[in-house]
Amino acid sequence: MIVLFIGDIVGKTGRQAIRALLKPVKDQYEVEFTVANGENAAGGNGLTKEVAQELYGAGIDFLTMGNHVWDKRQIMDFIDREARLVRPANYPAGAPGQGYGFVRLHGFKVGILNLSGRVYLPALDDPFSGAVRLINLMRQESPLILVDFHAEATSEKIALGWFLDGKVSAVLGTHTHVQTADERILPQGTAYITDVGMTGPRDSVLGVKKEVVINRFLTQLPAKFDIAGGVMQLNAVLLDLDEETGKARRIERVQRFAE
Amino acid sequence: MIVLFIGDIVGKTGRQAIRALLKPVKDQYEVEFTVANGENAAGGNGLTKEVAQELYGAGIDFLTMGNHVWDKRQIMDFIDREARLVRPANYPAGAPGQGYGFVRLHGFKVGILNLSGRVYLPALDDPFSGAVRLINLMRQESPLILVDFHAEATSEKIALGWFLDGKVSAVLGTHTHVQTADERILPQGTAYITDVGMTGPRDSVLGVKKEVVINRFLTQLPAKFDIAGGVMQLNAVLLDLDEETGKARRIERVQRFAE
Amino acid sequence: MIVLFIGDIVGKTGRQAIRALLKPVKDQYEVEFTVANGENAAGGNGLTKEVAQELYGAGIDFLTMGNHVWDKRQIMDFIDREARLVRPANYPAGAPGQGYGFVRLHGFKVGILNLSGRVYLPALDDPFSGAVRLINLMRQESPLILVDFHAEATSEKIALGWFLDGKVSAVLGTHTHVQTADERILPQGTAYITDVGMTGPRDSVLGVKKEVVINRFLTQLPAKFDIAGGVMQLNAVLLDLDEETGKARRIERVQRFAE
Amino acid sequence: MIVLFIGDIVGKTGRQAIRALLKPVKDQYEVEFTVANGENAAGGNGLTKEVAQELYGAGIDFLTMGNHVWDKRQIMDFIDREARLVRPANYPAGAPGQGYGFVRLHGFKVGILNLSGRVYLPALDDPFSGAVRLINLMRQESPLILVDFHAEATSEKIALGWFLDGKVSAVLGTHTHVQTADERILPQGTAYITDVGMTGPRDSVLGVKKEVVINRFLTQLPAKFDIAGGVMQLNAVLLDLDEETGKARRIERVQRFAE
Ligand SMILES: [Fe+2]
Ligand SMILES: [Fe+2]
Ligand SMILES: [Fe+2]
Ligand SMILES: [Fe+2]
Ligand SMILES: [Fe+2]
Ligand SMILES: [Fe+2]
Ligand SMILES: [Fe+2]
Ligand SMILES: [Fe+2]
Repeated sequence: MIVLFIGDIVGKTGRQAIRALLKPVKDQYEVEFTVANGENAAGGNGLTKEVAQELYGAGIDFLTMGNHVWDKRQIMDFIDREARLVRPANYPAGAPGQGYGFVRLHGFKVGILNLSGRVYLPALDDPFSGAVRLINLMRQESPLILVDFHAEATSEKIALGWFLDGKVSAVLGTHTHVQTADERILPQGTAYITDVGMTGPRDSVLGVKKEVVINRFLTQLPAKFDIAGGVMQLNAVLLDLDEETGKARRIERVQRFAE
Repeated sequence: MIVLFIGDIVGKTGRQAIRALLKPVKDQYEVEFTVANGENAAGGNGLTKEVAQELYGAGIDFLTMGNHVWDKRQIMDFIDREARLVRPANYPAGAPGQGYGFVRLHGFKVGILNLSGRVYLPALDDPFSGAVRLINLMRQESPLILVDFHAEATSEKIALGWFLDGKVSAVLGTHTHVQTADERILPQGTAYITDVGMTGPRDSVLGVKKEVVINRFLTQLPAKFDIAGGVMQLNAVLLDLDEETGKARRIERVQRFAE
Repeated sequence: MIVLFIGDIVGKTGRQAIRALLKPVKDQYEVEFTVANGENAAGGNGLTKEVAQELYGAGIDFLTMGNHVWDKRQIMDFIDREARLVRPANYPAGAPGQGYGFVRLHGFKVGILNLSGRVYLPALDDPFSGAVRLINLMRQESPLILVDFHAEATSEKIALGWFLDGKVSAVLGTHTHVQTADERILPQGTAYITDVGMTGPRDSVLGVKKEVVINRFLTQLPAKFDIAGGVMQLNAVLLDLDEETGKARRIERVQRFAE
Repeated sequence: MIVLFIGDIVGKTGRQAIRALLKPVKDQYEVEFTVANGENAAGGNGLTKEVAQELYGAGIDFLTMGNHVWDKRQIMDFIDREARLVRPANYPAGAPGQGYGFVRLHGFKVGILNLSGRVYLPALDDPFSGAVRLINLMRQESPLILVDFHAEATSEKIALGWFLDGKVSAVLGTHTHVQTADERILPQGTAYITDVGMTGPRDSVLGVKKEVVINRFLTQLPAKFDIAGGVMQLNAVLLDLDEETGKARRIERVQRFAE
């Protein structure tokens, strides 16, 4: 099964990048299933129902989230009814939405698990022990499991990759908005990358206008984080997964740009 | 001028990687000047005089440091007398050592500036305004200036890259120990990468034995951070700089492995 | 000179506490000069022109701020014209407003210096070296100097107290919204307290409705931080300063409550 | 039942303070049960078997810990066999030691629960939901329950106090080493204080020599945190608890000094 996982889509420019760049990638690689991190898709922070629909309509099959999941409060109204959307599973019990989900795809089930790191991020439940518990449940449904680990610290991400090696198809990092060059298949068959990167304006700071962020570092004054325009960038990884064993055969970094 | 900049060298395995992998890279690319981040070179944290000598002897011309600079206290005894070694320049005035230095190379001078980020790192002086002040001084000597920006947050690193575009030859991130795939020449001629990566044991967590780090995340108990062995990895970037203008003509990621 | 320094005034309940409780305290102690931290006075975060006027009208002579100084953006429009208002002096040069100010009082000048800590707070300039530099300037005008050190960590606050002992009349901590019981005159004559406390609703969490904050800790979900009502509390310290030497003769904690 | 709870005992000076100042306090108030936070009792960080014995011998009946619990590694060897010692209960399952314990006292059982906050502290399990679960267990044994909440942020401490009001006899904060002046009986009968304070050298920064800490803030260089000498200070709170209901009748701050 050929899966494309797209890094954090940022604002309008990110959605334009999806419209301009996703179809050619899917065609080129004969992608069967497309997942994207959508935590910044609406105006740079959070997700609305309209933006989610727009992304599904543009060819994304499933959305994951991260620390910005609740930034648009209206997500609380629709997240429970949206089967193609997960938020970090390690929120305390009772949080709106679900931490993992499944999709049926020509006879197979693919599970998607979203987890948040805790280093430099909110004090959610332990993603390590939580991952074990949830993956044990998920594997009763299917060995095809994708993990979006939304985390800041490289140590936490790499450690979780090793920890889940052989238990899931892929551990894919998100959140830093910069694609890393350490993609590989770990020894027990799990595809791993520390960060998939960002889909949005290339000439920016994580999607935000660079002048705004530079000025913020210089002055320490608050600033409105406007999303930049200009060259659009799509960051993703391509996975080839064995449907029977759930193991990864290939992980490849994808970067596409458009004016 | 062909410059090789090597990401954080971690412990004995990192030094073995330098011995096994550096010379072939230098030969292949006809490297003229080699810089490495050495903050983890001695036992995983800090730098001793012996380890510095070992690295100079193995073909490294200049060393930069980071938040682990003082982990081996004896560095305070030799850092002031070692011209080929810099520590973050934004330590408060009076700190041992120097924040930037120069090397003469067949008729040209190359400046090396070391800065530390402040996001999730100690409260040093502002690296943004500090960079401007120091680079103005350095440019009176030479337009060839390499900046090692040792920082955690991708936002801070990318912002400094844009901020210094056109003022220095390269802004090269270190500290996360994971090479990023965003290397490029910015519009005004500065080579940029968010993180050069790590030189040390590949099958590890930032150089440390993976079982130790996983256990630490699971138990939150203290642990001895032993450096892993196994496959050695060298992470670096290759730069081609215009000696007259100081602008970068090329930046290329380098990854080498050896059993 | 009898000075009253009032801890962070929080929202409407805090302003009601000032109206109900300040005058009796001033009368009882024959207070000559009243300073208050106003960073939370408008709706719990920030300060508006109207709220500042209300506080001046209610008997407060001077306002200090903290990390919430810019929460109401309109302060940027009036802070430069308001001589009775200071914000942390260790913002980078060029920030709106001033970090210290003076007031004339029956033949004497009193200086007020506002500083922000950096532990668990934004990366402003070093408050320690900054304090020395600014206090040297201020002492050319008067030995009567009050320092509001707005900081989180007890270590940073106590260290600055010792560091400034004998150089200023008082180092008064703010920001944690809980009054500490360590008020004293340090050996060189500086009055010190780690935190003056909070002026606002007593049965709350730092001024916010307790149910809201408990729920936030339990769920890690975002919440609207409504200011609590109920019993009003005034937290302050009373200082008796020697006008000639600037040294403190007395520091006394003040707590008043009203239904 | 008259209970004395003593704030973090720091190093040798703290133990001297116990020897010099504890007995008179116990005699004066006819104290029946004495608990102390011992996380800094051995050399400023951690606890050894010898130091624990010394403290039991000096009249302390029970010890609680905090984020420094594992600083002396040898505690791992004896903590499981020491019934009068608890460490934060919200360490992940499997950690050495126990998070709560009971003591029999003339016909009654007193429970002691230790919890750690998570704001600016390691990512342990949620102390809020953990407290409810453990207190439900403990209340099957006795309504007399003391909680040492070892935490940094005033918001987290106050919120837990309100959250546990009526469920335990007392919520007593430790960790900041500065006694707060907000002791009170909450409406449902739980005694509360944000921080009990520190038992150790008065003229210090949290127990450490003040010159060392000031220098560290000025230089950002590492330093050896030697424990100060000089005037000894004991910080504690006195509780009067109803043995039948577990409710608090009184909470009183205690501060004693000796040359
Ligand atoms: Fe994101
Ligand atoms: Fe994120
Ligand atoms: Fe490093
Ligand atoms: Fe580092
Ligand atoms: Fe405040
Ligand atoms: Fe504040
Ligand atoms: Fe402590
Ligand atoms: Fe502590």
